[in-house]
Amino acid sequence: MLYHTPLDAPALRTLGIPEPWGFGLADRVRFGELDALGHVNNAAYLTWFESFRLPYLAARRITDYSPESPRLVLRRTACDYLAELFAGQDYVVTGRTRAFRRTSFTMEFAVWLPAAAGAARCTTTGEAIVVLLNWTGTGRHPIPEAGRRAFLELDGALDESA
Amino acid sequence: MLYHTPLDAPALRTLGIPEPWGFGLADRVRFGELDALGHVNNAAYLTWFESFRLPYLAARRITDYSPESPRLVLRRTACDYLAELFAGQDYVVTGRTRAFRRTSFTMEFAVWLPAAAGAARCTTTGEAIVVLLNWTGTGRHPIPEAGRRAFLELDGALDESA
Amino acid sequence: MLYHTPLDAPALRTLGIPEPWGFGLADRVRFGELDALGHVNNAAYLTWFESFRLPYLAARRITDYSPESPRLVLRRTACDYLAELFAGQDYVVTGRTRAFRRTSFTMEFAVWLPAAAGAARCTTTGEAIVVLLNWTGTGRHPIPEAGRRAFLELDGALDESA
Amino acid sequence: MLYHTPLDAPALRTLGIPEPWGFGLADRVRFGELDALGHVNNAAYLTWFESFRLPYLAARRITDYSPESPRLVLRRTACDYLAELFAGQDYVVTGRTRAFRRTSFTMEFAVWLPAAAGAARCTTTGEAIVVLLNWTGTGRHPIPEAGRRAFLELDGALDESA
Repeated sequence: MLYHTPLDAPALRTLGIPEPWGFGLADRVRFGELDALGHVNNAAYLTWFESFRLPYLAARRITDYSPESPRLVLRRTACDYLAELFAGQDYVVTGRTRAFRRTSFTMEFAVWLPAAAGAARCTTTGEAIVVLLNWTGTGRHPIPEAGRRAFLELDGALDESA
Repeated sequence: MLYHTPLDAPALRTLGIPEPWGFGLADRVRFGELDALGHVNNAAYLTWFESFRLPYLAARRITDYSPESPRLVLRRTACDYLAELFAGQDYVVTGRTRAFRRTSFTMEFAVWLPAAAGAARCTTTGEAIVVLLNWTGTGRHPIPEAGRRAFLELDGALDESA
Repeated sequence: MLYHTPLDAPALRTLGIPEPWGFGLADRVRFGELDALGHVNNAAYLTWFESFRLPYLAARRITDYSPESPRLVLRRTACDYLAELFAGQDYVVTGRTRAFRRTSFTMEFAVWLPAAAGAARCTTTGEAIVVLLNWTGTGRHPIPEAGRRAFLELDGALDESA
Repeated sequence: MLYHTPLDAPALRTLGIPEPWGFGLADRVRFGELDALGHVNNAAYLTWFESFRLPYLAARRITDYSPESPRLVLRRTACDYLAELFAGQDYVVTGRTRAFRRTSFTMEFAVWLPAAAGAARCTTTGEAIVVLLNWTGTGRHPIPEAGRRAFLELDGALDESA
């Protein structure tokens, strides 16, 4: 398994992860992510989606995390738990932007147990609404034009800014 | 501030927290709950709602956490971030059950900055769908009758089990 | 139990916590601090000591956490686990400064299960060496004179700066 | 970088990590491991050492984590912070057993920033004393004979059980 390295659409298909997912990151469940019930704690998934967003948003040219970049804050998160995950399991987080407006966008996520052959199993899905703020703190910041194009071309995102 | 102690409706009103909230728990933001942006991390709120559920679900007689009790698992969480929270701030988590079916129920949560006088400020809202499973792992477990009554009488929850 | 509020020597004695401890903070174990073994995880204690340090170091006048204050960084931590802690238990963290040099000091910590009558039970002890740096990043910062006096007078700390 | 996969002595030397280290695991700093100071939080290192111990202790045949295996608990941890780590950095945790007695052993750890050429930089060192307990809870459990041999032969550990 190729961990911490962006997996593109062909690489994801090899792991049994279907369309429309085209950006994924693999990692392994840590002992510290389990809770007293012995499975991955509900809050850990939000940190997985957070870890995903950093390289994803750089790749989509939303931010280069420089001091002049817009500040990205969460407006909303949601998570659906379909199956438990346990210590030591390898998983892949996939994410994409479903739609965007002028200063915000909606991402969706999924967590997969990859399959040696056949279909990967989706254990968790999630959603996040991200808002761009000016670093100065005075109001919203528009999504950079390069980012809008990347959302459209690479994710097939819906442009709801009109 | 009375921390870690269930706050009833009159106590919540004193802190400026409105109806329909009737069960609250106060705590203080810890340094370790901040992320590199200097505010409370998005995932921390889910652990606050989790900490809330334990005494709340005992008070609503859903479980006494004995070995024969049903196993409570999350089917879904959601969180709306309305305002940032920072180190050392006192906050109150309120929660209630909005609706229940035969083997699951939907809770809603809110996080408040209490006011010395006037209205508290709601900084975050959340939602969780909780499912009851048999400890043996073979299927769903019905909500205990005492719990259904408590949801109806104490939370004004909607009975969607019919 | 009076949570999140500095407990002085008389208050600590009432809880069965012996000399030389004169500064304590009470809190309650959260579900999220447990690991898959069902007890408080080893790393959680370091976050408890961290939460303790913030009000303690303000009270000892080492820092007021203003932008011009020295930057406080850990050089070393250690923790001895004497007994397990479990969900929902009330505990008290006590801390003091044992010795100080010109730009660093050594703290010691203990975690207690307070007793209604008789001696509290010490479940964990810890240690931290804290170093003061200039905010500019260019070298060490001396302990403020008011802080040295507080260490000497309030904690009986050893002055090793000579 | 080969993440989450045990690195043996030759692999570690290639990364600039010196003797006596012969077991390492690579990972990448996550955003969620940073604190409000923008660097990896002091407690995160303990979770890294914990994640290291699981595959290491299986490889050293101390436990196969079956229900009949001895229960492994920490008696003591310590951590020295030599340099800060930041988001996105690749690091290697190395660990070994320095000495063992009949029912406990002392491990040491180090965290490294691997070098493309030349010496890796050690940013953190640590220590842990691990005790073996019977699962039944009635007293200590001796280190399995295969484990003692592995400590001696693979780590050059000191036998202090005599």
